[in-house]
Amino acid sequence: MKALQLEPWRIVQSEPDFENNRIYESIMSLGNCHMGIRGNFEESFSGDSLKGTYLAGVYYPDSTKVGWWKNGYPEYYARIINSPDFIGIGLNADGIDIDMNIQRPLSFERALDMKEGSLERNVVLEYKKGKRLHIRTFRFLSMHDKECGCVVCEATPLDDDSVITMSPFLSSNVRNEDSNWGESFWTTISCQTGASDGHICSMTRKSGFGNCVAMACKAYLEGEEIPPSDFSSHGAEQTSGTVSIPISLLCPKGSTLRIVKFFCSVTTRDHPFETLADLSLEKASSLRAEGFESMYRLHRDAWASLWAMCDVEIKGDKRLQSAARYCIFNMLQTYTGHDSRLNIGPKGFTGEKYGGGTYWDTEAFCFPFYLMSFGRSSKTLLKYRHNQLDKARGNARKLGLQGALYPMVTVDGDECHNEWEITFEEIHRNAAMAHAIYLYEKHIGDFEYIAKIGIDVLVETARFWASRASWSSFRKKYVILGVTGPNEYENNVSNNWYTNYMASWNMEYAARSLALLEKQDAQRYESALSRLGMSGGEIDTWLRISSNMYLPFWEELGVFEQQDGYRDKVLEEASAIPSAELPISRSWSWDRILRSCFIKQADVLQAFYMLPENFSRETMKRNFDFYEPKTVHESSLSALAHSIVASRVCDFEKALSLFEHSVTLDLENRNRDTADGLHITSMAGAYLCICLGFAGIRIEHGKLSMSPHVPRGWDGYSFSMIFKENRMRIAVEKSLVTVYWDSYETIIIRVFESEHEILPGENVINATTLHAV
Amino acid sequence: MKALQLEPWRIVQSEPDFENNRIYESIMSLGNCHMGIRGNFEESFSGDSLKGTYLAGVYYPDSTKVGWWKNGYPEYYARIINSPDFIGIGLNADGIDIDMNIQRPLSFERALDMKEGSLERNVVLEYKKGKRLHIRTFRFLSMHDKECGCVVCEATPLDDDSVITMSPFLSSNVRNEDSNWGESFWTTISCQTGASDGHICSMTRKSGFGNCVAMACKAYLEGEEIPPSDFSSHGAEQTSGTVSIPISLLCPKGSTLRIVKFFCSVTTRDHPFETLADLSLEKASSLRAEGFESMYRLHRDAWASLWAMCDVEIKGDKRLQSAARYCIFNMLQTYTGHDSRLNIGPKGFTGEKYGGGTYWDTEAFCFPFYLMSFGRSSKTLLKYRHNQLDKARGNARKLGLQGALYPMVTVDGDECHNEWEITFEEIHRNAAMAHAIYLYEKHIGDFEYIAKIGIDVLVETARFWASRASWSSFRKKYVILGVTGPNEYENNVSNNWYTNYMASWNMEYAARSLALLEKQDAQRYESALSRLGMSGGEIDTWLRISSNMYLPFWEELGVFEQQDGYRDKVLEEASAIPSAELPISRSWSWDRILRSCFIKQADVLQAFYMLPENFSRETMKRNFDFYEPKTVHESSLSALAHSIVASRVCDFEKALSLFEHSVTLDLENRNRDTADGLHITSMAGAYLCICLGFAGIRIEHGKLSMSPHVPRGWDGYSFSMIFKENRMRIAVEKSLVTVYWDSYETIIIRVFESEHEILPGENVINATTLHAV
Repeated sequence: MKALQLEPWRIVQSEPDFENNRIYESIMSLGNCHMGIRGNFEESFSGDSLKGTYLAGVYYPDSTKVGWWKNGYPEYYARIINSPDFIGIGLNADGIDIDMNIQRPLSFERALDMKEGSLERNVVLEYKKGKRLHIRTFRFLSMHDKECGCVVCEATPLDDDSVITMSPFLSSNVRNEDSNWGESFWTTISCQTGASDGHICSMTRKSGFGNCVAMACKAYLEGEEIPPSDFSSHGAEQTSGTVSIPISLLCPKGSTLRIVKFFCSVTTRDHPFETLADLSLEKASSLRAEGFESMYRLHRDAWASLWAMCDVEIKGDKRLQSAARYCIFNMLQTYTGHDSRLNIGPKGFTGEKYGGGTYWDTEAFCFPFYLMSFGRSSKTLLKYRHNQLDKARGNARKLGLQGALYPMVTVDGDECHNEWEITFEEIHRNAAMAHAIYLYEKHIGDFEYIAKIGIDVLVETARFWASRASWSSFRKKYVILGVTGPNEYENNVSNNWYTNYMASWNMEYAARSLALLEKQDAQRYESALSRLGMSGGEIDTWLRISSNMYLPFWEELGVFEQQDGYRDKVLEEASAIPSAELPISRSWSWDRILRSCFIKQADVLQAFYMLPENFSRETMKRNFDFYEPKTVHESSLSALAHSIVASRVCDFEKALSLFEHSVTLDLENRNRDTADGLHITSMAGAYLCICLGFAGIRIEHGKLSMSPHVPRGWDGYSFSMIFKENRMRIAVEKSLVTVYWDSYETIIIRVFESEHEILPGENVINATTLHAV
Repeated sequence: MKALQLEPWRIVQSEPDFENNRIYESIMSLGNCHMGIRGNFEESFSGDSLKGTYLAGVYYPDSTKVGWWKNGYPEYYARIINSPDFIGIGLNADGIDIDMNIQRPLSFERALDMKEGSLERNVVLEYKKGKRLHIRTFRFLSMHDKECGCVVCEATPLDDDSVITMSPFLSSNVRNEDSNWGESFWTTISCQTGASDGHICSMTRKSGFGNCVAMACKAYLEGEEIPPSDFSSHGAEQTSGTVSIPISLLCPKGSTLRIVKFFCSVTTRDHPFETLADLSLEKASSLRAEGFESMYRLHRDAWASLWAMCDVEIKGDKRLQSAARYCIFNMLQTYTGHDSRLNIGPKGFTGEKYGGGTYWDTEAFCFPFYLMSFGRSSKTLLKYRHNQLDKARGNARKLGLQGALYPMVTVDGDECHNEWEITFEEIHRNAAMAHAIYLYEKHIGDFEYIAKIGIDVLVETARFWASRASWSSFRKKYVILGVTGPNEYENNVSNNWYTNYMASWNMEYAARSLALLEKQDAQRYESALSRLGMSGGEIDTWLRISSNMYLPFWEELGVFEQQDGYRDKVLEEASAIPSAELPISRSWSWDRILRSCFIKQADVLQAFYMLPENFSRETMKRNFDFYEPKTVHESSLSALAHSIVASRVCDFEKALSLFEHSVTLDLENRNRDTADGLHITSMAGAYLCICLGFAGIRIEHGKLSMSPHVPRGWDGYSFSMIFKENRMRIAVEKSLVTVYWDSYETIIIRVFESEHEILPGENVINATTLHAV
């Protein structure tokens, strides 16, 4: 976006560019894992805008919309919804409502501070001939007390004395733009205003979530606090669904009127409904009593702790430094694992699209980031799926199958998606659930989670595969018919290599885990068998199917065949597509996309990202060289997976360009849909491409190895990760790797072919690292 | 349906069975090709009912409803809509509104007369303790003047004198149950009532079709006409969208009050809007002046002419005789070719489902019936598609392809369907357009239609196939990827044998037709080339693709393979499916259906139905024996195609049982969806199974042959057909074929292996016909 400057810790918009306002609103979103807001303006704005305030886990069961109903489609689409608005502050000067769409700014800056998690705006506008007003707003959602936040609004008349009115307000008159049937999701239960505070309690229809949002305000003129009794001649206002506290004062030229609005939004997910009103008012009032400085310090400290764990540094490329931090910043705004009822939606708190539901994106891409950054506490993501196991069992039953099938999209465990080719057929997602458990065991080096409850998910996903595969008397192999692989530009194909491979792996891994459990703890093993109702030959069946799974291979080219019949296609390279036709998802009809050879995102290559230990570099390279040029990367999840595999096959130029693509996806609106919200789940790539890709980190059999290279144009990079419960910070430069090991133990790291002893504290390894060629 | 008696010329319902009322309403529908009405009661009925009055060609562009939008989906779904109601007559006795759902009948009969095209109902009910009323209604839609119809209503108090009020009314307050967004489709423009007449003019929203419906009434007490001045104390009534003429009289016990309501419904499809009101009123009034008898005689005569052309007789099986006539009756109610802007919807005028649009059903199944029954005038169906050629070109362009792709569903040439697997992929429909032209040429023995305009459709469909096929360097053959064949229980498959075969045939037939045209008339040929913008090598390209088309063949079994990968499936017989799970479309999830081997309707076998001359009996038999047992016949189009092929492979038991299935589909509610309307397009089977199947009629190279057999349990059958412009009636008995040949020419018919000379008039051929074994 041309109006954006990417600074190491800030994203700055320096022009209004209101035509693209929705894009900037997405980019300037704030969140604290409990709630989030798009970068909407506090005051009225009659230009294009997508208003968005979201509360984690508060959803509405929107009636499903389909063209033609198919058996097994879900009854409802659970949707994280636009929630009562707490940032609003109406602004009026000399009787004129301020609206930047009408009084176009003379100067404009909107800046996101990633270090401190705040958004600041500075605007000068002429609201009346010769009368300029300087407006500054500043806001944050507390990372310390996640139910709270604060907005500061300042106005300074620059040319004359002026009567300024600021009206901090709350509103439950909110709607989703993308509701299926134009329904309103909230019912206002009660509104109340005091001299300087107010609240609104509302409840979602159908799903019955209660919310109460409260505010408590302070006002200052030239730093002097104004008592509430002086706020306004006509006092607080209240209409259905809106409460407002107008504060009106004559401000001498050059003086600043400052409002600090402390707010709190609580829900019945955490408290009984009858306590919400008092609770939210009390919290807002006590923040007002403690003051802005104290509240902001705690928030900033919380961010500092997160950055200490998760920051990546890129030396020598400020733009990519900023973009990479921006990605990690958004991951942390969306989810930090404090609540195992929550997960990560593709748009986080930045838009309505995809309904805020959870996809396999979490296990495939987000989980590895949280696992390596947060260690053991990433287990909340595994528990989320374990908690939903019963619903996944029901989901498999609906399709006439055994075991458990995790939903394609969910908020509460129920399937929400309703395209048959995805809902019923994109079943590879099931293996991602098992794979996350596998990664956890491998990285933390701890079998306990599996032994305790993880085994249930492994067994039920293996069971699903065993009932879903069928015997082909023609091939004398087990086949999996009628699936959609990760590449959604193919639908209802048979023997998708990735799906068959991962199914086979999943069954084998479940069998292996059961064997290990039996060896470690016979009693627990017996108890698992009985809890899961396992029959005598079941494990043997899995192993038989797993080892006799058909895996299409194209002998002539020596590559895995993406699915049966891929070789029948006209094989072309994506670079041959005229750029006017890109993305093909927007310009080609669906059948044309399906019958072309073009690939949306990693499919065969996805397995090399997930299980690199199972493939030689030569195999990966042959397949990468065949499939990557046919890939249009039209899923946000494509570039990061390809960048990592590119590093693994030493295609460093491609690894860098795909990394760049991935981390700047939203900042440059590459998919032309950032207006709808950010691509949160793919933002894990900023970390993973560096750690797993450029640094080549691997953990196998409890041993850490790396094969670092420094991308062309960079001086180096550093990142942090958990290994065996302790934190390690690794800095890679052209011929030097520095490892800071925060532990009392000594360990071994293999760098390329040589092993190095790592002592607690700082270690310097001289290595001829690989440079981009 | 248990309450139904099937008589040779009547379908009689002898019990109310109101729980299934929608089913009987469908079965008792009347139509005259211009308009149609479901078997709704004339008076109020508070029980379950689907009200339905339809006007041919009057549609509403209902906004498309989809779950997920795909490029190329149509903006609207053109829907033949519920139209202003003209049959209504309110009924009241002694102040009590008659409603059979409240005053349950003591006796009840509703009878459809197929010979005369009328519906009669006789009911006795007790409307008040000890007071019985006999009600008789009788109605028809004139086959002579298709804009008109008549309802007679008679009421006789059986126990006492009674004040009877009858209120004939018109209403434009009608709605479709299945509208996508609950929209109302009609706007009432004007209403007017006179002493004994009235009318309503309305207009459809968006599509702007105007309609005016008028009525003119007569009343009689004991046969004595009552002047309009005596009709009612309070005169005609008019509210928004309803006009009514209450006729209220004191009727002595045993006397009959009779109302005759003449009505007329005209539209802007045929007349300017400003003339509609006068026109409809004039027509209704002049019918009233001429009287019921005269009107009914013309109607009955029109039906008699139709039956003379189209009746089939079955000797020795009254039930199947009735059912077969019922099917032909409904074909004739729906379409007789008087208007080339019209076509045949799957439900005709009997329900809302499928929106009244035209499918490939017309060319594949209805056209052969009209061709053989009506001869040359069946050409209106070919012209319908020719008229829509430009829109079909646009449709191909939307998919990035050349030539023309006819829509899956249409009213006005625009595609209406929006499931990608059907809309974009069920492209075999295109070959059906060419095939209908081929049949016309073959049966009428006339190349003139092709030479004049048919060639355009042949060229544009061939072009489509040439651009849709692609070269597989792997197979060294042309392939057609990503299609749905006639068997819709497979989606997005590659190299569907039927599609590839028909595509190849279509290209070859277009090339052959062009060659013939060049030979016959070089100037017309040149003009066609130039009109169609044909390039030099285009015909050669078609022939190259046609002759190098990949046609999957399963060597081991010697059968054509339905599509790539069919052999990978678990092969089971449909008889193994537990009956509680039938139809599988209602109990299995879609993915389970897709990956099973079960077949919805003829796919490979469809080609043997369409082009029997291209396959040996042995080939057909091997494929029939393989595929038929895997077929669940869950499309209404399945049984008839299979019955005909079964006859061709001499499986006479199956041919009969599938014929029975086909002709009783709705009368026995076999698909459990007759409530939604009748399966009109499959009703052609009643004729085709007898003519093409049991009698084995074939026309090849201008020569007629037959291989007749008489199904087990039958004494014989007869039917009529056009051959070389003249009509022939053929009666088949066990060892005798009688041919009545209405011509001045002598011709040859081949019966099995021997040739017989057929003279004008009656001819008797002794033949050892084949009996069911």
